[in-house]
Amino acid sequence: MSYSSSGYRGAGAKLLSRYSVGVGDSVEVATEDGELVGVLMPRYESASEDYIVIKLKSGYNTGIQVAKIKSITKLPKSEAAAAAAKAEKVSVESKQLPKVALISTGGTIASKVDYRTGGVRAALSASELYASVPELANYASIDPEVLLSEYSENLKPEHWTMIANKVAEKIMAGKYAGIIVSHGTDTMHYTAAALCFALQNLPVPVVLVGAQRSSDRPSSDAALNLLGATAFAARSEVAGVFVAMHAGTSDDTVACHVGTRVRKNHTSRRDAFESIDATPVALVRNGAIEMQQKSEIELAKRRSGADIKLQPNFDGRVILLKYYPGFDPRLIEHAASAGYRAIILEGTGLGHVSKYCFPALQKAADAGVMVCMTSQCIWGRVRMTVYDTGRDLLNIGVIPLSDMISEAATVKAMWALANSKDVESTKKVMQENIANEISSSIPI
Amino acid sequence: MSYSSSGYRGAGAKLLSRYSVGVGDSVEVATEDGELVGVLMPRYESASEDYIVIKLKSGYNTGIQVAKIKSITKLPKSEAAAAAAKAEKVSVESKQLPKVALISTGGTIASKVDYRTGGVRAALSASELYASVPELANYASIDPEVLLSEYSENLKPEHWTMIANKVAEKIMAGKYAGIIVSHGTDTMHYTAAALCFALQNLPVPVVLVGAQRSSDRPSSDAALNLLGATAFAARSEVAGVFVAMHAGTSDDTVACHVGTRVRKNHTSRRDAFESIDATPVALVRNGAIEMQQKSEIELAKRRSGADIKLQPNFDGRVILLKYYPGFDPRLIEHAASAGYRAIILEGTGLGHVSKYCFPALQKAADAGVMVCMTSQCIWGRVRMTVYDTGRDLLNIGVIPLSDMISEAATVKAMWALANSKDVESTKKVMQENIANEISSSIPI
Repeated sequence: MSYSSSGYRGAGAKLLSRYSVGVGDSVEVATEDGELVGVLMPRYESASEDYIVIKLKSGYNTGIQVAKIKSITKLPKSEAAAAAAKAEKVSVESKQLPKVALISTGGTIASKVDYRTGGVRAALSASELYASVPELANYASIDPEVLLSEYSENLKPEHWTMIANKVAEKIMAGKYAGIIVSHGTDTMHYTAAALCFALQNLPVPVVLVGAQRSSDRPSSDAALNLLGATAFAARSEVAGVFVAMHAGTSDDTVACHVGTRVRKNHTSRRDAFESIDATPVALVRNGAIEMQQKSEIELAKRRSGADIKLQPNFDGRVILLKYYPGFDPRLIEHAASAGYRAIILEGTGLGHVSKYCFPALQKAADAGVMVCMTSQCIWGRVRMTVYDTGRDLLNIGVIPLSDMISEAATVKAMWALANSKDVESTKKVMQENIANEISSSIPI
Repeated sequence: MSYSSSGYRGAGAKLLSRYSVGVGDSVEVATEDGELVGVLMPRYESASEDYIVIKLKSGYNTGIQVAKIKSITKLPKSEAAAAAAKAEKVSVESKQLPKVALISTGGTIASKVDYRTGGVRAALSASELYASVPELANYASIDPEVLLSEYSENLKPEHWTMIANKVAEKIMAGKYAGIIVSHGTDTMHYTAAALCFALQNLPVPVVLVGAQRSSDRPSSDAALNLLGATAFAARSEVAGVFVAMHAGTSDDTVACHVGTRVRKNHTSRRDAFESIDATPVALVRNGAIEMQQKSEIELAKRRSGADIKLQPNFDGRVILLKYYPGFDPRLIEHAASAGYRAIILEGTGLGHVSKYCFPALQKAADAGVMVCMTSQCIWGRVRMTVYDTGRDLLNIGVIPLSDMISEAATVKAMWALANSKDVESTKKVMQENIANEISSSIPI
């Protein structure tokens, strides 16, 4: 078999070739620190060339630095079983590294199991994490905690509250250089927006990270994403809430996006997450953080201190309605009568819905339901002063949300309702830029 | 003033400089064909360098070929008014050109008024069209007809039926090389998808075209888009329903997209329309059609004959629901009880909604409501066999729609309901590729 097709390149590939071992072989690897026995695994595409990976009998994968390997012995199947019974120990170097807290909500990090399930348990002691992604030891000392074990499509606003409270607790402990939140990717951008509003005036970065492909696949993005998130959480000079995921298909770069401006734009690609109407805040390549210059995004600097502005509550009585030709205005009437306190209309173009909706919208507005407008175009800015339709909607009392994406708008409405004293102040909050959800000051 | 900043370049700019006239001056232009009096207008960025444009007293803009201009005289304001009273005539060359029908629904083509209003009237006689966009005379003899004058956000499924019937009538007349439908851009992609299903087995191209910026602005895309649509309608070797709009910001290229695979992805940019999970079918540059090779899109060849498969009816009882964290399952119950016959769920990731929706979905499915799944990621393919959530949804009876975009899925469901004898055959139709709405045959 071809080593390169199993992900090995460079020093690792040469070493395997010298000892004539291939993926799937049982091997005993002699290192400076002792012997390890296991099965040679395919290597993540994203991994350093300086490591090989074997699966230990315990089921965990461990990376072994090529430079430390003295020899590799291929074992017959029976001997392999016996040898594997030996004690296995992974020595984690404990340099003076920045401390980072890892809060797991259901996104697996470098575990051998499906990333969307509770199987995250498999890789959550510190030593297990380092065993799975040995390069982590270069960046931070990680302190993991499981908060939730849930598919992200099952998360609700009350989970955002739990996560915000847990992040706040970690920050207020005062010992972490940054916080990582591992998360299923389906709704990671909604949670990121929620944390942006719930956790303001942050002293350190809070970085959400997930994986599009489970980590037992050679094409998994789990290891690279975790490495990028860790480097950014530990060492970036900015504070705030970010999402760290693959930047492209080249598989060596992680992009860090502002939590309110990021969207999952592909069902399966590793670079599914994109900043909307903005460039990512930073790229992380080989552990180096390259900040991207973007004047329209204002970022707070990392600072000392552990004080934050925590407003973790959300009011779920918000309905997101995407407009389409044939949309029945009775749906708006239903929303108003079913107890929703806010409607986010995902309109067409610059922020339009048909004139047939006007009476229902007027009724809803008169009944004290807040109605806001975003655009289903995704990119660009709602501008409701350009055409009759927009002006009519403004007269009805519909609130234009500029270039806020629908997902951030829905989350923000839930947060604004829970943290404002009345409808008028809720409306005012919706139009203020709080966390880069409105990306520049061009008049609406 | 700088001529180039008003859009003039090359031969036009030189000529204006020679006679010391600028935008806004009243001028008398002597040509081989006679004299024209009017006000020098800024030139569309997209226009040929070989023309200048003056606004005649009638309000229409006319392009004058630089090569035919003998002299330009700058008039004092008072003389200008008198001279403008002279007869104005634009000679349209009547070569042996392909005939193209232009059906207007409310999108203005090269008119001086707002493109989204009924003001389309202003430029709809053939001579007026040629006066506004003189280069048209190189491509086709255009036969215009006003069908509707409506903002596109006000269009309903019954308008799609009207448009389909009108297109069918034009094609069955047997004299047109292609059909152009001018349309407001807000819902142009929905109408395009509707025509794809309503008009099958087309012998010629049917090309929807609009403008993102009204044509009295120097940055208008109206003229270039109309030129691209006309060239493609008149001469492309393929048949079917397409959308022709700016390909990029360089302002010299029009992209032609398959009607079911196109989406408006920006509120205001001229290149707002993009093919999803596909490249555009063709680019049109300086009137030349460059077909793009894409194996996953199957296009019919242009053919002789005027027979088509016309199924113009739509059943509007379809609801599109975008999922979000906090989505209340009672909305699904409401849809089922309010008389909708189909629900298009715009789920997360590979096609998921929370487990809290399962009972409501089961009830809807049991009640004979068709439930289909698309992804709010926009790009990529729904794959519901990968995770528990997807498998549970499949067991409930939810129909995965592969990489069909939500907009095309909503339209298709309306069409399938109106043209199928029962729920089971409707479901079958939804999963069959009819008009490239499912872009390849990778198993779901």
